[in-house]
Amino acid sequence: MDFELAAALKQPSDSKVILCVLDGLGGLARPETERSELEQSNTPNLDRLTEKADVGLTVPVGIGITPGSGPGHLALFGYDPYRFDIGRGALEAVGIEFPLGPDDVAARGNFCTLAADGTISDRRAGRIATERSTALVERLRSITLDGAEVFVEPVREHRFVLVLRAPDLGETVTTTDPQREGAAPLPARGADPASERTAALVNDFVAKALVLLADEEEGNGITLRGFATYPALPQLEDVWGIRAAALAVYPMYRGLAKLAGMRPLACPEGMEQQIAVAREHWDEFDYFFVHYKKTDAAGEDGSFAAKVRALEEFDSHLPGLIDLGADVLMVAGDHSTPALMGAHSWHPVPFLLSSRFSRGGSSQHLTEHECLRGSLGIFPAVEAMPLALAHAGRLQKYGA
Amino acid sequence: MDFELAAALKQPSDSKVILCVLDGLGGLARPETERSELEQSNTPNLDRLTEKADVGLTVPVGIGITPGSGPGHLALFGYDPYRFDIGRGALEAVGIEFPLGPDDVAARGNFCTLAADGTISDRRAGRIATERSTALVERLRSITLDGAEVFVEPVREHRFVLVLRAPDLGETVTTTDPQREGAAPLPARGADPASERTAALVNDFVAKALVLLADEEEGNGITLRGFATYPALPQLEDVWGIRAAALAVYPMYRGLAKLAGMRPLACPEGMEQQIAVAREHWDEFDYFFVHYKKTDAAGEDGSFAAKVRALEEFDSHLPGLIDLGADVLMVAGDHSTPALMGAHSWHPVPFLLSSRFSRGGSSQHLTEHECLRGSLGIFPAVEAMPLALAHAGRLQKYGA
Repeated sequence: MDFELAAALKQPSDSKVILCVLDGLGGLARPETERSELEQSNTPNLDRLTEKADVGLTVPVGIGITPGSGPGHLALFGYDPYRFDIGRGALEAVGIEFPLGPDDVAARGNFCTLAADGTISDRRAGRIATERSTALVERLRSITLDGAEVFVEPVREHRFVLVLRAPDLGETVTTTDPQREGAAPLPARGADPASERTAALVNDFVAKALVLLADEEEGNGITLRGFATYPALPQLEDVWGIRAAALAVYPMYRGLAKLAGMRPLACPEGMEQQIAVAREHWDEFDYFFVHYKKTDAAGEDGSFAAKVRALEEFDSHLPGLIDLGADVLMVAGDHSTPALMGAHSWHPVPFLLSSRFSRGGSSQHLTEHECLRGSLGIFPAVEAMPLALAHAGRLQKYGA
Repeated sequence: MDFELAAALKQPSDSKVILCVLDGLGGLARPETERSELEQSNTPNLDRLTEKADVGLTVPVGIGITPGSGPGHLALFGYDPYRFDIGRGALEAVGIEFPLGPDDVAARGNFCTLAADGTISDRRAGRIATERSTALVERLRSITLDGAEVFVEPVREHRFVLVLRAPDLGETVTTTDPQREGAAPLPARGADPASERTAALVNDFVAKALVLLADEEEGNGITLRGFATYPALPQLEDVWGIRAAALAVYPMYRGLAKLAGMRPLACPEGMEQQIAVAREHWDEFDYFFVHYKKTDAAGEDGSFAAKVRALEEFDSHLPGLIDLGADVLMVAGDHSTPALMGAHSWHPVPFLLSSRFSRGGSSQHLTEHECLRGSLGIFPAVEAMPLALAHAGRLQKYGA
């Protein structure tokens, strides 16, 4: 549903909606057992919910497309991930919960090692330790630029974020990373007057950084790429008329939720804690995004057993989530992370929506195979939002 | 399939197609029995047809979108309901079978009651009786406007239709309804020169109406909204090369069929009568739209039992429909109307297509659950037309 139609159809309601994202939910069968993580796990609460719910499989972005966390979540929040493509620099800044604003241009930075002739000998400065690069970032923070505020933030290992803040900066700036060793870093170039201004600031920053880093053996240079301005997404309240809260612990998901206009609530780690915070704020919001990270972490580690345990742990918290008493409860994933692959994948993701208007009766377990037979079929993740709001009585009839 | 491709692929044939729309066909399970209206009903004829047919579920407009009758039917007739969005006034005029033409602008009218200070004290004039409002409409028919023909038609209770006929009238005219009591009706305003002309005519009409209605206690004022010009839909014969007839009793469905270029045949109420009229005109047309209202009426009344009876009554007429001997017979719904909700809903709708080229063998009963396993899957209702015409041998190969 496009946002113009959404704005035309939205109607007020007292109903509550929960979107619980099990990060990296979808999996693949282990050849030895021919069972996926979901098929292997013992999830009696989820099974009971599945019997009466609408289930299906979401395609996060498109067939064959492996989503990052950004597009995977934004799709579930109702944003077409092609149309709302958040630049790498902005996503990196959001991912460390940097309070990115409308006057900011963010870039991903790498510390690199330069040879005596100025060419790059190591693009990642030997994957310098986070502690060491944090000290280097501290040094770069002394840099001042004419006409722009400068923020430098450590990320992990050789990575950092640079944010330039000034009115009317452009984002169409070429990378300074030659993408290979043996070549020198490139000067930044802007494609239009606003971006040329950004590029000039970037080149000035790099020149000053090289002076400050000159005595380093590893990490005596930097590269910058993925320049991106603040992604001004249409806000959930304007589009759908919902006040939304995020119960997420990791900065990346809190940041993504904030971009959509959700309020990230202060939240200690753990589903039980997240559910408790949701209960405290139950009357203030219409929509609650609850993020569960352990499924993805286990999948990324390639640990089938850990992912099964993460699913079973989630299942033990499900009654608490149900007890909140939402009119619509979704259990979804932003993408698949099969332990077999140890990485995100393009596979469609099991999806469940429980409301009193669910058709139910199509599946017994929330697994990749049973969801195939579900009442929702295979559908784009971006449709989860209008579907949920229909079940919540928050969308009027289209046409007479 | 877009209309350009349709026009390129269409080919002549002697084949016949029937689209039988069971209004509001889809339902939901009653929690007590966990069976939907279709699952509860005893439909031996439909069961026999289902076994050998292609079945699936149609999405009338989009995921989570609850369609009105207009978009629901137009989609089954092959019109993308987003692209061909028929304005409220035009739909209201079509709904009383007013012969709307290309020079017309139609609006929905309400009789309202005005207080002494000119503000609205009752937006619906106490839901004035149809008989009474028909008399008031008769009085409004004496109004003449400079440069436009005027038509006023009663609808039901406080509602009427106003049609202004003149060349080059615009439809982008603001409502005169302030949407609340205690406020005065608003002057109409046009957004462009053609619509300004319409607005001036509207304001003149309202001024003259107030004089004629001044002595009424209830219904001494009017509001007008939903201004819409004639929706000039591409005609079925031009797009698909089919001569189409409508066997529908209610004006709304006859009107919608006419917009698509179908001929609404004079038709007494009752499936048996509708089938008899189709038989009389069998040689004159290629495509027959048969409308069955009782399923929706029962659903809207929230009567599960009445909807089951309506389905069983339809089933008793199905042999007569089959006996017409069409090459392609579709049994479809314009939307779901679950008795549980007592209203139209967004849920996908069971769909059946029977031809000698059907795959068959996937389902035993035409129910929400069995259609999920059907050979057609879940698909947009707008694709029913090309699918039917393919089965009817009316579409050539695409590409060499």
